[in-house]
Amino acid sequence: MSFTEFPSRLLEDAVNEFASLPGIGRKTAFRLVMNLLRRKPAEVIRFGESIIKLRSEIHYCTVCNNISDTEICNICNNTKRDRSLVCVVENIQDVMAIENTRQYRGLYHVLGGIISPIDGIGPADLKIDSLEEKVKEGGVSEIILALSTTMEGDTTNFYLYKRLSKYNAFITTLARGVAMGDELEYTDEITLGRALNNRNPYQQ
Amino acid sequence: MSFTEFPSRLLEDAVNEFASLPGIGRKTAFRLVMNLLRRKPAEVIRFGESIIKLRSEIHYCTVCNNISDTEICNICNNTKRDRSLVCVVENIQDVMAIENTRQYRGLYHVLGGIISPIDGIGPADLKIDSLEEKVKEGGVSEIILALSTTMEGDTTNFYLYKRLSKYNAFITTLARGVAMGDELEYTDEITLGRALNNRNPYQQ
Repeated sequence: MSFTEFPSRLLEDAVNEFASLPGIGRKTAFRLVMNLLRRKPAEVIRFGESIIKLRSEIHYCTVCNNISDTEICNICNNTKRDRSLVCVVENIQDVMAIENTRQYRGLYHVLGGIISPIDGIGPADLKIDSLEEKVKEGGVSEIILALSTTMEGDTTNFYLYKRLSKYNAFITTLARGVAMGDELEYTDEITLGRALNNRNPYQQ
Repeated sequence: MSFTEFPSRLLEDAVNEFASLPGIGRKTAFRLVMNLLRRKPAEVIRFGESIIKLRSEIHYCTVCNNISDTEICNICNNTKRDRSLVCVVENIQDVMAIENTRQYRGLYHVLGGIISPIDGIGPADLKIDSLEEKVKEGGVSEIILALSTTMEGDTTNFYLYKRLSKYNAFITTLARGVAMGDELEYTDEITLGRALNNRNPYQQ
């Protein structure tokens, strides 16, 4: 079924909106819209409103740039968290991934991207000035660079190191090594080489 | 990444709404919401509004039950269409599929489903009374039953035939046969048997 003609503009508009989402084709968009049409009006209005509110009412934390319903996010507001640790991440998905480990009790700083000349993203496009300001003010004892292990991540790590190493804070990165469940014969040589060099005492 | 904790209620609400759609899991829902967050506010508001309008402003044609922006749909309103032909279909997707063939110039009647005892759908749940009324009033010379070739479709065809055959209208069904591009060795025996019995003179 192609869509040369829609019986309704409203239907066509909704299908077009859904089809603009990544990975949603026109047939899927149509199927989703037909699903909404079969629902109770109140349910569909709630759906639409949640999308509008998402964009118009959401805040970005003024301290760490994490997504938040308030001016300062729950993590930055939490007095139980260690304010001397700042974990630098690319985006809020990374904050959520680290939070889900339940292993980290410090604060975050969300860069909003990584340096990627090919995509035209330079240091000025990222929240690096406010990170430097935070470190300069003092009180930060360790900056954990938790960026992707890609070329862009390495470039950003290097850039951040150059800018932040003059301050009085220890700069660390996440441990690199063989991931849980990885088979050695399929592990790339760089990872395996580093894991060998950074070997740890065996723990039971 | 699982989602034990969201940094924002608004984000969580939007993810939950998208994840309620068929075939959209929580990870995909999250990805879609992140895509919306990166867009311009006006664009996202338009998206949300198109969903709200879809459900609150859309009409179903009072004549044929097709979806419509007005009380009577474009097809029923079109004076060029043959009012003596009524094609009975299950839903609006079927109307769109037949319209896309550009081979049909009559009107439609959308049942809103087919008889399916297993799903608890009986004749009273479908728009059959209004179809009978239409036929009873006269002016309909042919009723084309264009339902799925399933058990439920056959049951519905039989039921409609029983109810409508007493009126002065010819009742037909879509031709059954070997579909375009089908290979004979993979065609089921019922289809092949019917196609053989209903063979047509060869046309160049």
